[in-house]
Amino acid sequence: MRITALAGGVGGARFLRGLLHHLRASGADTPDLTVIANTGDDITLFGLRVSPDVDTLLYTLGGGVEESQGWGRATETTRVQGELAAYGVGPQWFTLGDLDVGTHIARSLWLGQGLSLSEVTARLAQRWGLPEQGVRLLPMSDSPVETHVVLTEDGEQRAVHFQEWWVRLRAGVPADRFVVAGLDRAGAAPGVLDAIRTADVVVLPPSNPVVSIGIILGVPGVRDALRGTTAPVVGVSPIVGGAPVRGHADACLAALGLPTTSAAVAGLYEDFLDGWLVDPQDAAVALPRARVRVHDEPLLMTDVAAAGRIAGTALTLAADLGR
Amino acid sequence: MRITALAGGVGGARFLRGLLHHLRASGADTPDLTVIANTGDDITLFGLRVSPDVDTLLYTLGGGVEESQGWGRATETTRVQGELAAYGVGPQWFTLGDLDVGTHIARSLWLGQGLSLSEVTARLAQRWGLPEQGVRLLPMSDSPVETHVVLTEDGEQRAVHFQEWWVRLRAGVPADRFVVAGLDRAGAAPGVLDAIRTADVVVLPPSNPVVSIGIILGVPGVRDALRGTTAPVVGVSPIVGGAPVRGHADACLAALGLPTTSAAVAGLYEDFLDGWLVDPQDAAVALPRARVRVHDEPLLMTDVAAAGRIAGTALTLAADLGR
Repeated sequence: MRITALAGGVGGARFLRGLLHHLRASGADTPDLTVIANTGDDITLFGLRVSPDVDTLLYTLGGGVEESQGWGRATETTRVQGELAAYGVGPQWFTLGDLDVGTHIARSLWLGQGLSLSEVTARLAQRWGLPEQGVRLLPMSDSPVETHVVLTEDGEQRAVHFQEWWVRLRAGVPADRFVVAGLDRAGAAPGVLDAIRTADVVVLPPSNPVVSIGIILGVPGVRDALRGTTAPVVGVSPIVGGAPVRGHADACLAALGLPTTSAAVAGLYEDFLDGWLVDPQDAAVALPRARVRVHDEPLLMTDVAAAGRIAGTALTLAADLGR
Repeated sequence: MRITALAGGVGGARFLRGLLHHLRASGADTPDLTVIANTGDDITLFGLRVSPDVDTLLYTLGGGVEESQGWGRATETTRVQGELAAYGVGPQWFTLGDLDVGTHIARSLWLGQGLSLSEVTARLAQRWGLPEQGVRLLPMSDSPVETHVVLTEDGEQRAVHFQEWWVRLRAGVPADRFVVAGLDRAGAAPGVLDAIRTADVVVLPPSNPVVSIGIILGVPGVRDALRGTTAPVVGVSPIVGGAPVRGHADACLAALGLPTTSAAVAGLYEDFLDGWLVDPQDAAVALPRARVRVHDEPLLMTDVAAAGRIAGTALTLAADLGR
């Protein structure tokens, strides 16, 4: 069974780790999972190219993530960044651990040598053992795409990089809108459109629907591929009990004039979504389109087993839809 | 008293730290010391620009050096490089500590922003408190200069970067010759020639005469400035008892067909050298030119006080010459 997933950072990575756990536990052959990662919140910091969502996927699926926060490396230190602070080099609001810096130096070096982001990501994934697990990790695009947030502070409208809004401001200043530099001319990375078109199942993990999944959907061709695929497309709601499980999806939905509901998220996917997993708390909320099959299942990914159960339910829903 | 020094790495840095110690201990005003650093062994590693001699000068004069080895940072760790090794990124024969990586990231970032190496070095020196100590640290040139070593291995002649010969091969394979890429068209950095011309004393610390001082002397204009300056030029022999105090100066001199003697080193400077400090063990060796005033003094820099004593003797010799 070829599974293709679109994913952002922490929520996507935890869900996919659960999916792999479920597939292994169910005694299937080596999984065949293609993960299309959001690279719209990539950023150049200190001259190094950082791909936060790709890194979170690498570290989580590769067993190196700091579990308590869901991103970054376990047993991390920040000696390099301490030196940069001593030299007066900013920004300091984005924490770069020393082990993490190793990843960014390798990525930047290889990009500088002319490798594409796809090729670089494949090299990084090799070290984290993703191929052995049956996982192919693709960036959504090899072209640089950067999400900027237009906001109003002290009566003045300005744009900041998504990471500055997300990390420094903790999405506490309302976003007027998102401007995704480079998205309209970003080609899908090699293999991305095919992976959607030829999948047996397409899964949308509980990633941020606006600034993670939403950005991937904006890559030319991706939305058409999702509309056109014969595979059932099943999504998992990132909203539980009317609030995001983690992150600031509420602030992102608000920027689009949408409420923080599972139904509003499903509405963003309504032209290609076939199945939708919602938490029992949210099951009563009507969906915009009757054709989407809704199933309720407790959606808190409290541990790998819980994430595996949710992923298994998503696959069962997909199988039911395929019948 | 305006003092200008040409310097390489460990030997130069330790001598100059002693010089500053001597000047402070003698109750003089804030020193006025310009250090012209060799940048001919600079190297790009992992996409980061490394200036080994500049860094050794910064760390030693700024109080951050690892005393036991004379270079690198005290309390250093190598977590970043461990990650690079895990990603299969080489070379691994050049140890880059985590704190040191902070310096290289800052340097590379600023160079990438269009600052000159002089400007970058001034920023780095600020953090290490060099201006407060009365020290102005200048790279010999703002142009990239890289020393390569032509050697014969297994019957084949090839060229390796100086650092590879020095660090990986420990100068154990004889150098056929040195090729200094970019040196003939490298302009002296701003202030370099003036600092030599307008100094009250010019000092050559016991740095490697071939691959440190020798490279600086190859920057167009430097040798002429030394010949033309009215200041006495006093050197300190890096050879004690017919052997280099540290490093592989013997292998470097051999590549020029020269013996490992204080006299041979003085011969490399004979067109501008006025005074020459040698160790008593080497005092019997004749100098090529009688006009160079030779003074003997124990030259082992066993600690800061010993380095200070040697530096003080060099200044006294210069004062005698100036009379």
